[in-house]
Amino acid sequence: MAEKIRGGEELSEQLKAVSVAEFFEKNRHLLGYENPTKALITIVKEFVDNSLDACEEARILPDIKITVKEISPERFRVRNEDNGPGIVEGKLALAFGKLLYGSKFHRLKMSRGTQGLGASGGLLYSQLTTGKPAKLSSSTGKDIHEIELMIDVKKNEPHVISQKKEKNEKRWHGLKIEVDAEGRYIEGKQSIAEYLRQTAMSNPYAEIVYEGPNGKAKFDRAVKELPPLSKEIKPHPYGVELGLLRRMIMATNARNMVGFLTKEFSRVGKGSAEQICKLAKIETKRKPQELNHEETERLHKSMQMVKLVAPPTDCLSPLGEKLLEEGLKKETRAEFVVAVTRPPTVYRGNPFQVECALAFSGELPKEGSAQLFRFANKVPLIYHVSDCATTESVIDTDWKRYGFSQSSGQLPQGQLAILVHFASVWVPYTSEGKQAIAGYPEIIKELKLALQEAGRRIATYVRQKHKMREGLLRRELFDKYIPELAESLEKLTEKKKQSLIEKLEKIVKKGGKVEGEDTKDAKES
Amino acid sequence: MAEKIRGGEELSEQLKAVSVAEFFEKNRHLLGYENPTKALITIVKEFVDNSLDACEEARILPDIKITVKEISPERFRVRNEDNGPGIVEGKLALAFGKLLYGSKFHRLKMSRGTQGLGASGGLLYSQLTTGKPAKLSSSTGKDIHEIELMIDVKKNEPHVISQKKEKNEKRWHGLKIEVDAEGRYIEGKQSIAEYLRQTAMSNPYAEIVYEGPNGKAKFDRAVKELPPLSKEIKPHPYGVELGLLRRMIMATNARNMVGFLTKEFSRVGKGSAEQICKLAKIETKRKPQELNHEETERLHKSMQMVKLVAPPTDCLSPLGEKLLEEGLKKETRAEFVVAVTRPPTVYRGNPFQVECALAFSGELPKEGSAQLFRFANKVPLIYHVSDCATTESVIDTDWKRYGFSQSSGQLPQGQLAILVHFASVWVPYTSEGKQAIAGYPEIIKELKLALQEAGRRIATYVRQKHKMREGLLRRELFDKYIPELAESLEKLTEKKKQSLIEKLEKIVKKGGKVEGEDTKDAKES
Repeated sequence: MAEKIRGGEELSEQLKAVSVAEFFEKNRHLLGYENPTKALITIVKEFVDNSLDACEEARILPDIKITVKEISPERFRVRNEDNGPGIVEGKLALAFGKLLYGSKFHRLKMSRGTQGLGASGGLLYSQLTTGKPAKLSSSTGKDIHEIELMIDVKKNEPHVISQKKEKNEKRWHGLKIEVDAEGRYIEGKQSIAEYLRQTAMSNPYAEIVYEGPNGKAKFDRAVKELPPLSKEIKPHPYGVELGLLRRMIMATNARNMVGFLTKEFSRVGKGSAEQICKLAKIETKRKPQELNHEETERLHKSMQMVKLVAPPTDCLSPLGEKLLEEGLKKETRAEFVVAVTRPPTVYRGNPFQVECALAFSGELPKEGSAQLFRFANKVPLIYHVSDCATTESVIDTDWKRYGFSQSSGQLPQGQLAILVHFASVWVPYTSEGKQAIAGYPEIIKELKLALQEAGRRIATYVRQKHKMREGLLRRELFDKYIPELAESLEKLTEKKKQSLIEKLEKIVKKGGKVEGEDTKDAKES
Repeated sequence: MAEKIRGGEELSEQLKAVSVAEFFEKNRHLLGYENPTKALITIVKEFVDNSLDACEEARILPDIKITVKEISPERFRVRNEDNGPGIVEGKLALAFGKLLYGSKFHRLKMSRGTQGLGASGGLLYSQLTTGKPAKLSSSTGKDIHEIELMIDVKKNEPHVISQKKEKNEKRWHGLKIEVDAEGRYIEGKQSIAEYLRQTAMSNPYAEIVYEGPNGKAKFDRAVKELPPLSKEIKPHPYGVELGLLRRMIMATNARNMVGFLTKEFSRVGKGSAEQICKLAKIETKRKPQELNHEETERLHKSMQMVKLVAPPTDCLSPLGEKLLEEGLKKETRAEFVVAVTRPPTVYRGNPFQVECALAFSGELPKEGSAQLFRFANKVPLIYHVSDCATTESVIDTDWKRYGFSQSSGQLPQGQLAILVHFASVWVPYTSEGKQAIAGYPEIIKELKLALQEAGRRIATYVRQKHKMREGLLRRELFDKYIPELAESLEKLTEKKKQSLIEKLEKIVKKGGKVEGEDTKDAKES
């Protein structure tokens, strides 16, 4: 081989750091920007999620206005305005001009956003495809700050193009954001309007006004109360991995082991802490930072072995059966709705809770699959239907038991709408695009329990409905033959045909009211 | 609502930066660490990919040794050693102790790794699950440097625990890396051994020695020549987005537009550059940095409109038909193999090339689906089979035409093995775990063309094989009846039975050699 071997010195020269912004710019499909249609929806979704999180946290009933304007067939201007708490001047550019910057990453708490990637990802995509800065305007109630913002991709740092300050006589608070981006606008099942419609369903305390290229839509506030504020919790010992435990040990300011365990974890009292230490053969008075690697490993093992109460669940904020029923009823104009909120449960130390609602609606098409609405932490999931734990659970449920037809491996058929909501401090999304929930067995199990309970509750109504319909069909059939029957009877009994018809009609009307066994008798007679 | 509204000042306090390492630690499923089985394979895969890339780049025939040792039922020690160029002392800790640090991100060139995430992701997972540092040892041929390394997750920086330097009398160059990690060890279709077996298939110039918990395996070097070194290319104007163009304009040291266009892009000569400028109404002598936003947009549009030669394709390093045939033949012990390497083509300015091989092997089971081997840039893909463009293309191909049975929407049936290789400077993986290729129409089209051509080539053999088999069956059947026939003929012709048998057997033997139409004639007579 005449070829020259290249040495490690020369090749090592090429090693260098990549910024997070560069990484996500190149891999934008990981954030949901793989095609123009989805990109446009993703931008709206990220801005709206942000607004809802901010309002809820600040205990403000959300008023959200979204505008999507067509600038050219391939370019759109997306504008989002909320009445949230606003962001202070010093953090505004960072919050939107730096990826992986946010308030939600380090907390165990249920929220829509988690990583500080969503809205800044939208800005990144916008400037990549149009080269234009984003326009931001915010106030916490004092002055209004306006900036034009770009992201310095090489550094993953905000680059403020222009800024100004304005008086705020009306003491407005909130955030306005506007970006231009390449996109494609569609209507239908996976559209911005549908996304907002479903958002309104799961957030009935929000008012959402939407102005799209093809018209306006307003989603009124259905209830005037915010759900209780979800609380932040400490990690539960069962869900902590060794590497993280090591880091917590280094970072704690507790002076001894009992202090460390009771202070940094949820559900560890003095008794449990002592039990853990005993099992790990570590003195309760030891300084945590002094533990060596073997001791830390023993501690970690012991933490999994001691019996502890499950983590607190006030970190979760489910919608509740009332809101679920109202939301689904409003959207599907259903005759009959049932909702089930399961008690919270735990997966690897992370509390989660599932709920579902079923609606039977005459307005839905008789043929075809049931409508499925999927939500995670109140955010509608509209992509990756077949990959999702919610879909899997619906398919795995035996709907024939509840009066619906269903082919194996398929959604049930009929005039049914199904809403499923998964709420957790940590939703295991299958990808950063946050479009589907991973099918962990514990999650599937809970989802199926909820669906089964709701199924049982709706089954009675569905069966009655089926019987009524059958009765009605029989009556209609009978109605047709009354004149003929009367004629025959006239010949037989020599009674007047007209009076026979009247009598027969009377019988049929009574029969029409009779349901269940009576109808069956009538048929047999 | 009695609840207190929380102000933007208070809430803005909570905003803070998240390090890339923290992000990927929490979202380790994005890197392929969602369960212990896959985690273990992913670590091996990342280390081996790294070694192969390094050796190829340095023009060294790779010798790779992998050991996976069970420390406890849930914990394994993974060790990888190569004879690559090694990494210099100053960069060793960074290359493995900092995520998003590598040599491949900023280059348009075909390689296995791309982001500088793989091997450091393995270290991150290792320390999270076992708390242990990684052991690294490397030399470029001078001294040997050994370090114990952890990742400072909060900062995404390497943290060197210990280091030493040793004499290197044998002038060894290469890299040794050892980590402990939680895992689960399995054999079978999605195992480490299978991954390495397939790696050997697509990298026949590498020698791979594997020592697992259940025994050893050695994959010998089948060819002694490296494939040509793939070249780095400049971006093609058709594949550059506006935001990136803007950044290139700011970064260039070209003094005028023609210089900028010809220097920073591939396939732009002076003529094309002038044409682009004219169309964009920008003077050829303008300083690039002086362009305003509108001019940049016009430039971007014009770049897409001017007719340019497709990008150079020497950045690709396909396996070639010879290697494909040899690789597949060796692995499946096939009687007949065909391979097709398609000419390179372009998707959004990114050159790519597909190749495939088909093997007909009597050793494969007669019933059941064909075996499918999927590769991207020479790396075996063993997960997410059904999501992948390669699988989609195989299913979409009409295999009945080529003599195989196939149900709609399924892989073909029979004693067939299919190998598909996708090579590109930029593989559109469906996720960071790099397990499946996104189904872009341009890619599917090329894959199908390759499969169809290979299908046509193998069809003749398959049909002949079928006919031979049918002929054989007929002969066997006939053999059984010779004595009976002879007896009847004896009565009829009064000739000796034994001589009749001998004559009949002679005829049958001849007939066995007769194929095609002759066999048909024999049957009809």
